[in-house]
Parts: sequence; C-alpha cells; structure tokens
Amino acid sequence: MPIGTQGTVKAVSPRELRELNAQIILGNTYHLFVRPGIDVIKHFGGLHNFMNWDGPILTDSGGYQIFSLAKLRRISEDGVQFQNHVDGTPAFISPEIAMEIQAGLGSDIAMALDECPPWPCERDYAAKSLELTTRWAKRCKEAPRHDRQLVFGIVQGATFEDLRREAAEAVVAIGFDGYAIGGVSVGEPEEEMIRAVESSEPSLPKDKPRYAMGLGTPPQLLAMIARGMDMFDCVLPTRLARNGTAFTSTGTLNLKNAEFTMDKRPIEESCACPSCREFSRGYIRHLIKAEEILGLRLITLHNLYFYLDLIRQARAEIDNGAFEEFRREFVSNYKTRDSEA
Amino acid sequence: MPIGTQGTVKAVSPRELRELNAQIILGNTYHLFVRPGIDVIKHFGGLHNFMNWDGPILTDSGGYQIFSLAKLRRISEDGVQFQNHVDGTPAFISPEIAMEIQAGLGSDIAMALDECPPWPCERDYAAKSLELTTRWAKRCKEAPRHDRQLVFGIVQGATFEDLRREAAEAVVAIGFDGYAIGGVSVGEPEEEMIRAVESSEPSLPKDKPRYAMGLGTPPQLLAMIARGMDMFDCVLPTRLARNGTAFTSTGTLNLKNAEFTMDKRPIEESCACPSCREFSRGYIRHLIKAEEILGLRLITLHNLYFYLDLIRQARAEIDNGAFEEFRREFVSNYKTRDSEA
Repeated sequence: MPIGTQGTVKAVSPRELRELNAQIILGNTYHLFVRPGIDVIKHFGGLHNFMNWDGPILTDSGGYQIFSLAKLRRISEDGVQFQNHVDGTPAFISPEIAMEIQAGLGSDIAMALDECPPWPCERDYAAKSLELTTRWAKRCKEAPRHDRQLVFGIVQGATFEDLRREAAEAVVAIGFDGYAIGGVSVGEPEEEMIRAVESSEPSLPKDKPRYAMGLGTPPQLLAMIARGMDMFDCVLPTRLARNGTAFTSTGTLNLKNAEFTMDKRPIEESCACPSCREFSRGYIRHLIKAEEILGLRLITLHNLYFYLDLIRQARAEIDNGAFEEFRREFVSNYKTRDSEA
Repeated sequence: MPIGTQGTVKAVSPRELRELNAQIILGNTYHLFVRPGIDVIKHFGGLHNFMNWDGPILTDSGGYQIFSLAKLRRISEDGVQFQNHVDGTPAFISPEIAMEIQAGLGSDIAMALDECPPWPCERDYAAKSLELTTRWAKRCKEAPRHDRQLVFGIVQGATFEDLRREAAEAVVAIGFDGYAIGGVSVGEPEEEMIRAVESSEPSLPKDKPRYAMGLGTPPQLLAMIARGMDMFDCVLPTRLARNGTAFTSTGTLNLKNAEFTMDKRPIEESCACPSCREFSRGYIRHLIKAEEILGLRLITLHNLYFYLDLIRQARAEIDNGAFEEFRREFVSNYKTRDSEA
C-alpha cells in the first residue's frame, strides 16, 4: 500500500496511482484528524471523494502516530489524551472514537485502536499493554462501522514470543476481517522483527488477510511473504525518493552522486515504469540537484512501481510454485544499504 | 511560453505540457549554463533530448539573468564578466558565446545577447546601452547557429520613445527571424511599459513574430496582443501557483484562505483543465496548507491551462474579427490583485 498520509500519496496524483496499478492505499487517520479535520472530509463525502481516489483505502487507527508524534500523551483504560503536533490542540481518542473517525473517513478497511509499545520494552509493560490492546480491540469490534467497512485487529506483544502468541489468539478470538502484526519495524533488529512475526503467524487464520505493518526493505517484504504475510505499507519508496534515492534490483542508487551526471541510462534498464521509459539518470540527477519537483516526482513513480512490481512478481511466483527460488535470487542480487535502515 | 528555467517547467512533466497543448516552452540559458552546465546537455544531445520535450524551445541569451542574478558583473564591449549566483564561479559571456551556448542547447529559437537596463534609467545610459545592444546583435547575427535554429533580435531603449524607435529600426536593419521587445516588465509603471511597446512596434515587420518579454498579467497580455504582440513568456502562472494562487476569469484566488475549506467547486466552474475536472478548491486548499506537492502541481496545471487558453481564445477572436470585444469583456470581468504585481 502506497502511503497517503495527508490525503495524497506524496508528489503523486490519483491518476498516476491508477496507472501504477496501485490496488489500495493507506490513509493516516491521525494526520487527517489534525488537518484538515474529519468534519471537512465528511463534508466532502469521505476520503475517497475528497482526494478523488476510487480504489480501496485502508486507514490506520491513528494510535501509532499519537504515540510517535503527539505531545503530552496520557493513556488510560478509556483511551488516550494528547496534544497534536501541529498546533498543540488537546484531543482525546478512544477505541469508539477511532472507529467513528474511520467511519467518517469512509475507508474500506479500518484498523482497531492499539497501543504500540516502543522498542526496547520491558516484558511487564508489553504484557499489560497487550491486554489493554485486547480490551480496546473488543470495543472496536462492537463499535459502529461505515457501510461495508472491514475492520482488522492488531497483534502486539513486543519481542516476546509467548506474548505474541497470546496476543494473536486473543485478537482472533474476538474475530476480525483481517489481522495485522503491529509493533514491528519500530527500531528492533531484523531477527527480532522476524521472530515477532513468526511467533504471531501460526495463530492467524490462513483465509484472512495478514498485514505486517510499517515494513520494510524489499528483502524484508519477501521475508515476510515467505512467512505468510499478505499486505504491507511502507514509506520507503516515497520517502527515499524525496531524498534522491531510487530502488533497483541490485539495491538503491543515490541519484545525487556525481557519477550519474552523464549517465544516459534510465534508473533501471529493464524497468517499465513511466520514469524509466522516458528519462535518464543524468536528467533526474540534475533535477534533484536543482531541487526541481519533477525530480522527486520521477523517482517516486519509479520507486512505487518497483515496490508494486516486486509484490506482483511475488504473487505470480507463488502461483507458479517458484516463490522461494525467486526470493533467493532477488535477495542474492540486492544489496541493502544503510539509507534503507 | 511556459517557463522551463532549469530544464523543467516547474512541477510539470513534459507529458502534462503536451496535454495542456503547450506549443513552445522557454529555457533559461543562464540557469542551464550554471547547472548542469552546457557540456552535460550537449552530451545528452541537446535540451530537447535532455528533458524529453519534443516541442519547440526558445532559449533566452542569458543576459537578463546575468544582470539580475549574477554577482560582480563587469560589462565591456566584448561581453560580460560575472560570477554565477550558485557557487560564485567566474565566467564570461559574449555575443558569440551566447550563440554558441544556445547552439549547444539546440533550441529552436535563440535570442541575441542584449543589455537590459534597469528601471529607472537615465537617458544617456539607455542610449549608450542601446548602441551596445545593437553592436552585439550584429555579432549574434553573424555567429554560427544550430541547424535550422531561428534567431530573434531584441529592442531595448528603456522608456524613451525615440530610443525605442531607433532601437527597433537598428535591429530590423540587421535582420532577424523575429523581434522581441525587452526591458519591459522590469518594475516600470504599466503605462510606461505600454508606451515602450507602442513606440517599438510600428518599426517591426508585421510578417515576423513579435515577442514581448517577461509579461504579464492576463489583462496585460491582452493589451499587448491589441498592440500587435504575438509571443509571451511569463513566470506568473507557475510562480503564483507555488504560492497557492490560482487564476480565474474574475481574478486570482488565494487558495490558502479559510473561505475555501469547505468549497466543493473546482477552481473555476467552466474550466476544462485536468485539475478542475477532478479536484475541489477545498481539497487543493488542504494540500497547500499541508505543504503537499500535489497541491502546487494542481494549481500549476490550472494556471498554465488558463494562460494557454486565454491566448487560444484571443487567437480565435482575432480570426473572428471580435478580439476587441473579447478583450473589453475579459478585462471588465477580471480584477487584477496586488499579488500579480
């Protein structure tokens, strides 16, 4: 899912998203709540109409951003009191309010409100937090939804295998339309992340979508797919693009580098994206150096295409029964660089 | 001509320019000379190939930017010594070098190197400068060109009617493929600008394109068309867009204003541009307030469409013999605001 934090996938138009064959995008409830405000989006008939995107939208609950961005948070059984990071306006969010907001946004998939513990996290805290997340999940399940809106529950439990299993069983017992693994990619080492997913996954029903939240590098995505994950959201393709970094099958290129000044090749020779069909590395480098918007537009389009195409290939290879071979080959060609960490 | 200062019309792709039916764009020689450098663009086979724009390109001589942006200028009979504004590298430009650079860029229309005196300007200075510009024009005429490249001469003479006439006659005597009126829209009152054009125009052949440089508001463009001008370049549609300002037939709208928060209408109801067909004022306002790139993209597309469509209408009304009526009606509906000054 390309990330549309503030009612737009950064630098990209809805038409371009359709041309990239994006099947679903993510909207950040917290950001939209802060600006322009839910009343504005409701006035426009929901987020689809507001931003003119007729494909599916998944909204997060806003919880993650409250914990990572907002100020003066106070968490209680009932919900979270906070001040938004833009103008400090105090606000309160509860499981019921999170669902009401997402109903107002009219997303196709709403996420339950959870507490996402930081990494590292004490076991005691993780256990208590997990129980609160479970009680909140129940309240989210019972809250009113938008017409035909699906709701996903979230598995927490930090890096503790038994807590992950316990969390997964509890959220499955409540019963959701899909299940997300949260609290991963929050700074923990990659092995811990993979263990958290591996501990959660066996308890999640195979016939429901499984969503690994906030991941990751291309090899990480394939590692997650190998472990049964179906859905991802990731800021890397759009965020790194704005920094001049392009994904390729051998790793990222920093297009600011002088070595690309005279380079007539596209970002990737074999790529069929709109940028690679028409523009050279040398031209894109010039645009980025000159701080021209078209530069980050072109890299953003390429990076989104790269991610979406990687998942398309993975899907096809699963159908062919050749996913593991595909993954091994991809990972052996791909060099992960620090900029992706 | 939409302005493509640094090898891109700001925020817009070549494909979007084609869809807007832009017939020609302007490239700024000085900016391209400073970055990425002419050798780079020559390596890519010229500016058309570099930026992937297959329509006509007019390049300016770079003179205007040297006089307005560069540091430590020293002007002599031979040319101008200066330091570029990005990293202070010293450089020298002469009429021959200006033509050589434009031949390297491979533009369809090159401009002669001129000195553009500031406003206000003493008569003595204007007269001397005009003579230098005339001598430089001769040297430009004689310099080698790119294959099939046209060259336009420039009429200077500040705000002095007799100097304008003298300048026009001198440049026409040299003989160019088209004629530009320079040294207008440099801070002088509108009446002085119009007088400068009116004093130059009668000496310019009717069967060659006439280009009023660096203009202007929509009513100013129509005023210039009424006085026989055929071509324009203007930063207003792209520059004001990046500030959240959109052109309409009744004047500009500042889309940052709170009044547009809930406004479901497009920027202009009757407009057929890609932004107005798909997006509301309220959504675009949100994007601009949230500093999202899509916001300035959408306003840029609208504003370019507005300017190009205004000229299309003017052309059609000239064919219909109804231009003066069209102009009167347009101007009576259009309120020029300070933001356009």
